[in-house]
Amino acid sequence: MDTNMLAREKIEQATGILKERNLDCWLTFVRETTAQSDPALQLIADFDLTWPSALIITRKGETIAIVGRYDADVVRESGLYTTLLTYDEDISETLVATLSRLNPHQVAINFSLGDVTADGLTHGMFLQLAETLAPTPYIDRLISSGPIISSLRARKTASELQLMRKAIAITEEIYAKVGTFLQPGRTERQIAGLMHDELKRRGLSTAWPGKHCPIVQAGPEACIGHSSPTDRIIRPGMLVHIDFGVSYQGYCSDMQRMWYMLEPGENQAPEPLRHAFQAAVTAIETGKAALRPGVPGYEVDAAARATLVSAGYPEYKHALGHTVGRYVHDGGPLLGPRWPRYGETPEQRVEADSVFTLELGMMTGRGYIGLEDEVLVTPRGAEWISPFQRELRYVSAG
Amino acid sequence: MDTNMLAREKIEQATGILKERNLDCWLTFVRETTAQSDPALQLIADFDLTWPSALIITRKGETIAIVGRYDADVVRESGLYTTLLTYDEDISETLVATLSRLNPHQVAINFSLGDVTADGLTHGMFLQLAETLAPTPYIDRLISSGPIISSLRARKTASELQLMRKAIAITEEIYAKVGTFLQPGRTERQIAGLMHDELKRRGLSTAWPGKHCPIVQAGPEACIGHSSPTDRIIRPGMLVHIDFGVSYQGYCSDMQRMWYMLEPGENQAPEPLRHAFQAAVTAIETGKAALRPGVPGYEVDAAARATLVSAGYPEYKHALGHTVGRYVHDGGPLLGPRWPRYGETPEQRVEADSVFTLELGMMTGRGYIGLEDEVLVTPRGAEWISPFQRELRYVSAG
Repeated sequence: MDTNMLAREKIEQATGILKERNLDCWLTFVRETTAQSDPALQLIADFDLTWPSALIITRKGETIAIVGRYDADVVRESGLYTTLLTYDEDISETLVATLSRLNPHQVAINFSLGDVTADGLTHGMFLQLAETLAPTPYIDRLISSGPIISSLRARKTASELQLMRKAIAITEEIYAKVGTFLQPGRTERQIAGLMHDELKRRGLSTAWPGKHCPIVQAGPEACIGHSSPTDRIIRPGMLVHIDFGVSYQGYCSDMQRMWYMLEPGENQAPEPLRHAFQAAVTAIETGKAALRPGVPGYEVDAAARATLVSAGYPEYKHALGHTVGRYVHDGGPLLGPRWPRYGETPEQRVEADSVFTLELGMMTGRGYIGLEDEVLVTPRGAEWISPFQRELRYVSAG
Repeated sequence: MDTNMLAREKIEQATGILKERNLDCWLTFVRETTAQSDPALQLIADFDLTWPSALIITRKGETIAIVGRYDADVVRESGLYTTLLTYDEDISETLVATLSRLNPHQVAINFSLGDVTADGLTHGMFLQLAETLAPTPYIDRLISSGPIISSLRARKTASELQLMRKAIAITEEIYAKVGTFLQPGRTERQIAGLMHDELKRRGLSTAWPGKHCPIVQAGPEACIGHSSPTDRIIRPGMLVHIDFGVSYQGYCSDMQRMWYMLEPGENQAPEPLRHAFQAAVTAIETGKAALRPGVPGYEVDAAARATLVSAGYPEYKHALGHTVGRYVHDGGPLLGPRWPRYGETPEQRVEADSVFTLELGMMTGRGYIGLEDEVLVTPRGAEWISPFQRELRYVSAG
């Protein structure tokens, strides 16, 4: 995929979002982005910048880059910014002149209390910007770009969806290898090793740090949470649960899969396990049915949560789902309960063209049951874009 | 190399630096570090953190981590922080209680106007911290951790030097391959391709973005600066100049090498080229002789610059040298002139145990002459840690 085309699509989207939200101007202010980048930069640029640089997108569709002389070539080659202004000594004068010409009612900058992906402006760069704008009216027009970036990340373009579907396909391929590798006697660590080898062979990396990706949990004594795979041996009668994702050309997948290790003489899991598995499937499908553009995230979580609880299982201690994209937790609305630690994110409304995980589970006497697949929100509702694990998979005793 | 040991060495160094500078406490305040990290975090931790987290190092040698419940395991496993405090809902109360107990005269936090590697606190996280500390006296005791981080990055530990020497050795190996591959008819792009293949084969990446690493410049028409290799064909009579570095286990190299493509009948480069090459060598060696602990960066640059100019060559339009480490430009003092765009960095004083590049050059009628190798600053002066290219290399006409 052409990263230049991705950036072009996102810049065009950004102009549309500014229009919708009635905002005049969005300013991304960065320097030495190979040392410290801004998560917003990768959306609107396919290059790094060294000297202090301002990328400005306006609601009229103007795209302006103000960069140091030696950064000008990469910006010009990209063709992403129609106005390219360069400086030799100090960006301040050109930046103030540009804002004075645009005279925006708002200048959205990249800081956010609640959304890390919209909080890429460092405090040092904020201080530099505040000093530059102090003598101008724009110092009082600075607002958070959080809502702009949230929509920009949420609304996947055709090119982005293509990459996300590819990441999902690779994840499925690797899970298929796990399915043939799984047998009693193997350890959690061996399974994680196989999955890492498969990634390495493809020149890819995990969607989150590899120490905890995959999470492999065999049997009822495995820790829940961000734990590393251990030398615990997989035995008949255990559930094996894996949470894993890959990063493909900058886009992530995040899916869980699970297997039951049949005991000699069994041809399916014990009834309580099958019942619990089915309750998890039904709760997720209930959440999916509630997921559509405009709904606040907490309503989707509540639908799944109530279904699970009414089936007699305990509440899961996390959110039903999160966005996926360039990050495995891609910001924006959380399909989660209104717990204080989630801040405002469950109140945010779902947007069309966004991708969410739907995930929940429960501990059982044989191990953890956990399901997670990905959906795309369309104007009509949510569609699976990864193949939802509706059936428990089995590994025979030998 | 054990990343845990690297972090342990740096945390111990940090305590020493706090003592030296008479500072009570250094606070690193981060969240969701896989989405947006702080360049300081990789120095003092071998883990990522999800919920808002405070890592505190005091001059008395106390190390305190305040993290969300689900982050506690990785911090505990690391053994890097002797006091581990967890929270479920909101970090504020525990953070305020901890600072009240320590009652520091200064709380150094990670923002800096001039040093990007010490500017990892985002503005949103600063606002959250300011709100938390507003009712306490500590709101007025916040200072920049820039000088702490600058020293911490500058002073390479034994483990860090081991990794940097390995990065240099790999760079030399790859340059040796280039030496045997170079011949008239090859293109800049083919050389870059060979170098990327060599890296890929080793599972390594470039020290700066691969589009511009290596920079390969053949002949006098090649652009100077951050340009990508082209299809320009290498011909007899051309200088071929390469600027390249690798990243090995998080540590970078940065070295330039050059060759002259002999014309039929030649057995060395034309006299003016040899003269210019020797002038570059001498200027760099003069700079190296001026490099020792305590000297401000601009004095080292001035020594090399004056030598080159007095030999009749134009001034190079950049700094003589920069630190190298986790970043290819690793912050701290710049061995550069006091030009406005370099800010305060040329005024900073060189520290023992730091690693610098020494690099300069000039354009000639046959192409660019540019030399760059790395030195370690010892109490007695500077020592090459990459093998300085004192002689022009030759490729015969075929």
